[in-house]
Amino acid sequence: MVHSTEEEHEIKERDVRSLSSFHHSQNGPYMHKVGVPPKQNLFKEFSHTVKETFFADDPLRPFKDQPRSKKFILGIQAVFPILEWGRSYNLTKFRGDLIAGLTIASLCIPQDIGYAKLANLDPQYGLYSSFVPPLIYACMGSSRDIAIGPVAVVSLLLGTLLQDEIDPLKNAAEYRRLAFTATFFAGITEVTLGFLRLGFLIDFLSHAAIVGFMGGAAITIALQQLKGFLGIKKFTKKSDIVSVMRSVFDSAHHGWNWQTIVIGASFLAFLLLAKYIGKKNRKFFWVPAIAPLISVILSTFFVFITRADKQGVQIVKHIEKGINPSSVNKIYWSGPYLGKGFKIGVVAGMIGLTEAMAIGRTFASMKDYQVDGNKEMVALGTMNVIGSLTSCYVSTGSFSRSAVNYMAGCHTAVSNIVMSVVVLLTLEFITPLFKYTPNAILASIIISAVISLIDYEAVVLIWKIDKFDFIACMGAFFGVVFVSVEIGLLIAVSISFAKILLQVTRPRTAILGKLPRTNVYRNTQQYPEATKVPGVLIVRVDSAIYFSNSNYIKERILRWLVDEEEKGVASHQPRIQFLIVEMSPVTDIDTSGIHAFEELYKSLQKRDVQLILANPGPIVINKLHASNFADLVGEDRIFLTVADAVASCSPKLVEDV
Amino acid sequence: MVHSTEEEHEIKERDVRSLSSFHHSQNGPYMHKVGVPPKQNLFKEFSHTVKETFFADDPLRPFKDQPRSKKFILGIQAVFPILEWGRSYNLTKFRGDLIAGLTIASLCIPQDIGYAKLANLDPQYGLYSSFVPPLIYACMGSSRDIAIGPVAVVSLLLGTLLQDEIDPLKNAAEYRRLAFTATFFAGITEVTLGFLRLGFLIDFLSHAAIVGFMGGAAITIALQQLKGFLGIKKFTKKSDIVSVMRSVFDSAHHGWNWQTIVIGASFLAFLLLAKYIGKKNRKFFWVPAIAPLISVILSTFFVFITRADKQGVQIVKHIEKGINPSSVNKIYWSGPYLGKGFKIGVVAGMIGLTEAMAIGRTFASMKDYQVDGNKEMVALGTMNVIGSLTSCYVSTGSFSRSAVNYMAGCHTAVSNIVMSVVVLLTLEFITPLFKYTPNAILASIIISAVISLIDYEAVVLIWKIDKFDFIACMGAFFGVVFVSVEIGLLIAVSISFAKILLQVTRPRTAILGKLPRTNVYRNTQQYPEATKVPGVLIVRVDSAIYFSNSNYIKERILRWLVDEEEKGVASHQPRIQFLIVEMSPVTDIDTSGIHAFEELYKSLQKRDVQLILANPGPIVINKLHASNFADLVGEDRIFLTVADAVASCSPKLVEDV
Repeated sequence: MVHSTEEEHEIKERDVRSLSSFHHSQNGPYMHKVGVPPKQNLFKEFSHTVKETFFADDPLRPFKDQPRSKKFILGIQAVFPILEWGRSYNLTKFRGDLIAGLTIASLCIPQDIGYAKLANLDPQYGLYSSFVPPLIYACMGSSRDIAIGPVAVVSLLLGTLLQDEIDPLKNAAEYRRLAFTATFFAGITEVTLGFLRLGFLIDFLSHAAIVGFMGGAAITIALQQLKGFLGIKKFTKKSDIVSVMRSVFDSAHHGWNWQTIVIGASFLAFLLLAKYIGKKNRKFFWVPAIAPLISVILSTFFVFITRADKQGVQIVKHIEKGINPSSVNKIYWSGPYLGKGFKIGVVAGMIGLTEAMAIGRTFASMKDYQVDGNKEMVALGTMNVIGSLTSCYVSTGSFSRSAVNYMAGCHTAVSNIVMSVVVLLTLEFITPLFKYTPNAILASIIISAVISLIDYEAVVLIWKIDKFDFIACMGAFFGVVFVSVEIGLLIAVSISFAKILLQVTRPRTAILGKLPRTNVYRNTQQYPEATKVPGVLIVRVDSAIYFSNSNYIKERILRWLVDEEEKGVASHQPRIQFLIVEMSPVTDIDTSGIHAFEELYKSLQKRDVQLILANPGPIVINKLHASNFADLVGEDRIFLTVADAVASCSPKLVEDV
Repeated sequence: MVHSTEEEHEIKERDVRSLSSFHHSQNGPYMHKVGVPPKQNLFKEFSHTVKETFFADDPLRPFKDQPRSKKFILGIQAVFPILEWGRSYNLTKFRGDLIAGLTIASLCIPQDIGYAKLANLDPQYGLYSSFVPPLIYACMGSSRDIAIGPVAVVSLLLGTLLQDEIDPLKNAAEYRRLAFTATFFAGITEVTLGFLRLGFLIDFLSHAAIVGFMGGAAITIALQQLKGFLGIKKFTKKSDIVSVMRSVFDSAHHGWNWQTIVIGASFLAFLLLAKYIGKKNRKFFWVPAIAPLISVILSTFFVFITRADKQGVQIVKHIEKGINPSSVNKIYWSGPYLGKGFKIGVVAGMIGLTEAMAIGRTFASMKDYQVDGNKEMVALGTMNVIGSLTSCYVSTGSFSRSAVNYMAGCHTAVSNIVMSVVVLLTLEFITPLFKYTPNAILASIIISAVISLIDYEAVVLIWKIDKFDFIACMGAFFGVVFVSVEIGLLIAVSISFAKILLQVTRPRTAILGKLPRTNVYRNTQQYPEATKVPGVLIVRVDSAIYFSNSNYIKERILRWLVDEEEKGVASHQPRIQFLIVEMSPVTDIDTSGIHAFEELYKSLQKRDVQLILANPGPIVINKLHASNFADLVGEDRIFLTVADAVASCSPKLVEDV
């Protein structure tokens, strides 16, 4: 508000200066002046910012200098990468994709049935979601290794959010309609983020928060499976560990079914063993991949023979035969459920994206190819939009199946097409065979699948590297386990944001000292051998100076000064006469920052301390001139390096180097 | 999620290394190693972070090494600074405070009556709010120049928010109760922020956004005064410029009162002339300060003589006599209005704080004393809590009156006590005299007061310094003027946040080159004379590397590499074999950042480019070791300076310097 504009003069022509940009000085043989970059015009500056923000990956690069017809073809290929890689597709690649596709199909069919139950939907909806979306993705996606379909965490999240609105048992039809509505908006959210190039928004969920969230979700999902695993009929609808364990123990005396437990436990042991074998020797990756299907076949056969369902072993009973029916007229296009579906869809879509992008990036860096984040989002979104019209619920990339896909030697997204075809055949011909599949097997399969989401090695590493990340990780984990998926997610996002805010409000500053026998000035905390220059205080500010931290930085610098002065008095050092602010890391400064420096300058003047700036960057030096602060401090007080600045303080100091 | 922990080894003992922290090298006479600071224990690290975040101003410093009795006295003095400065108070200071106090009293009385109307309250509530709060502040506050009382912007904001809930005309009593409730919670908010040392939260409203918001609010307030100024009886309740102007012109033919306009316009001219005189010559600062009171006296006398109120000139009519009645039992302690009062209070309290803190800091830096932000908030909050119990509404520091206070030569907060006593006398004895004061005069006084909130010079400076700040400023301004105060505020906060998010997601990177005849490497954009080293690409990352930007940084570095390689091929330069990342500005790195660097390392390996790090800071080097990334890159690839790193790439390159 209050800004002294009285000292304002005309801005001098700076171009003159930049011509004579270095000159001989009495202190060193060649002392450079701080360069003032040529002033960019406003439009150029603005378009540069927009480009770095939204088009950081330079998506139009291949279009440059191409004839129009070529541009058109490139445009089509950009939307449908299959047209690009499809031309060089051959039989060798197909062999790899076929094997990988069959492997992930055998893994996905039992998982799909189980995950559909997590989302409170009938089993066939899980299979539907493994048929249409992978086909769409294969045409539009740019990742070669991702395996598309329903995943555990998104299914759980969707189920939890949806049942807060509609009871899935009492109003199954309406519940389904809301599920399709949410899926539709999840897809729209994903397409929009990709199209508006806002993909960076998902980066705001930190790695650590995701690890914690996923671990918590895995435990929640595993606990939910106790219902099927123990054959409990009355089970809580809440997902926190306390409610679930109470529900489990309340039914211990009359609600558990020993036959169910025997079947579930023996096959869980089998599945875990298979997992262990796969982990021990990477050649046997296919063992855990086909173990679930084998379990389903064996247990179904066993129940059919023994008619264990009459002993209280719960079975799947019925899976609708035939491929996806249309659900266009089932989506709520109006009414109160439109808004609710929208909200749930946005959350589910974002989480789906986060998972798919993490997978895409991981495998792309393993095989060293580029995944275009924004294009990928458009592909994932389109597949969910079309999925929502064909009775699918939210699909995304699955960690476990993508890893199997990769290890089985997939080459392209054709493996997804193969999987899709297998699911199609399953839907058309063999769903009736699932009638006697016991629910306990599905529970075992889900438990063994989600266990690998608990990444304790990552947690240990997070603890070692960054304690704040660890708090975010644990916050998300305990939030999910003890309260609910939404709360866990909220905690994860909040802690991630708190960290960003902390970073921008409380940037670091450091006192620099001279490394012996060099001209290099470094943080005295890191280099205890660095010596301070008597009478001179050198402070480095380690962040852009913005409104959010300008006051803090000003006060912190003054506090350093007071501290050093006290120390100096105690040890009979000369009074501090010069304060050098090393500005190399200060990439930008705004109006609040300039104000703070003006106040700093005034305070220093009152204390008879001279302010000197070292190495301001291109943007900062421009703004220092625009605001006339450079004139206020004096242009001869702005130096290229700390060494030059120190040299200027007192020529005597340089001589004894 | 997917993190290769297979390469993980035991962390080596690093203390050994830090002992032998520099060594002779074949390339330079003395080549320093990157220092690894002694590992701090967890508690120390944590308490350091907490201290810098919440106790950045080191409030307990004076308590250090003091006997217990002294500590107690210091504690009392910390809460009531009056006990500290009061002891050295003398007659000379009192003379200054008395004159200043009388001057601001003469200014505040007419303003208070007008501002109360902005908040849709009866005039006496404005006077009440200039009686109790200044007394409390004088005992607890640490600013010597601030003048406490109702202010225009907060009154407008409070009035707008309150009338959305309750109609002030139909339910005046309930409206008042809600106003006291909001005031109570505004005080609680302020105390809480101060007590929890969360004062830095108000720094999130950027200077530019405040300039825009204040300017917009000033125009809105001035437009609202057209009602009193033109003598319009039917006036819109909305505050946007379109509704107000429509309301004004709809009543042009029969609703305007010419006598009112004559009185209003002539006194407005008088007030503006007084303002101009005060601005031209600082010696005459008292002219604009007493002009409002003179206007009130003259116009009241004029109306009383001519009985112009019978001609349709609206007058104040009645101001309750006597000091503040208790309002303890008027606050909503329960019911639906409790929550609404809380919400409004939080917003009003935050805005009040923002204004008071800006004033406090400005005058403190002018006279070079320290204002303790958090203590100040506790003082402002306490004064509002006690105010809410004694029929006051939200008070804070007033820009215009504080400036007058400063110029009138106040020394301490005693000037507030003087003002408070004058208001007390006014309430007790002369309120009946205000009966014939025309509303048009109050409108003129408010218009002439708020005009100075429009700081167009600051806007010009903002435009010159930072275009993004300018957008924030204009967004807030137009939001307030064309929509409403709340929307303007929301826009201001949103744009401020967007800027922070942009800063942390899209940090700057720069290509460095060697300045001729030095060993200094600088941004080639800023120093066009800097030359690139053939076969070596030097990139500086200008930000801490966190989850929010780690992917961007990795991809940006790779894009620099591709760009430079293309340029190199075009100009037949040698292939780029070394990528040096200058990490001086990278103050911190988290787990996502480490991942991104691991991926970068892998990508570079595939391209046969060697990754080299220059000058990582203390925290970064610790984390690089904790995550074993330092071992992965190779310790001999981490250098103290870019010059050392370049020297290591090829000894030949150094020789031709």
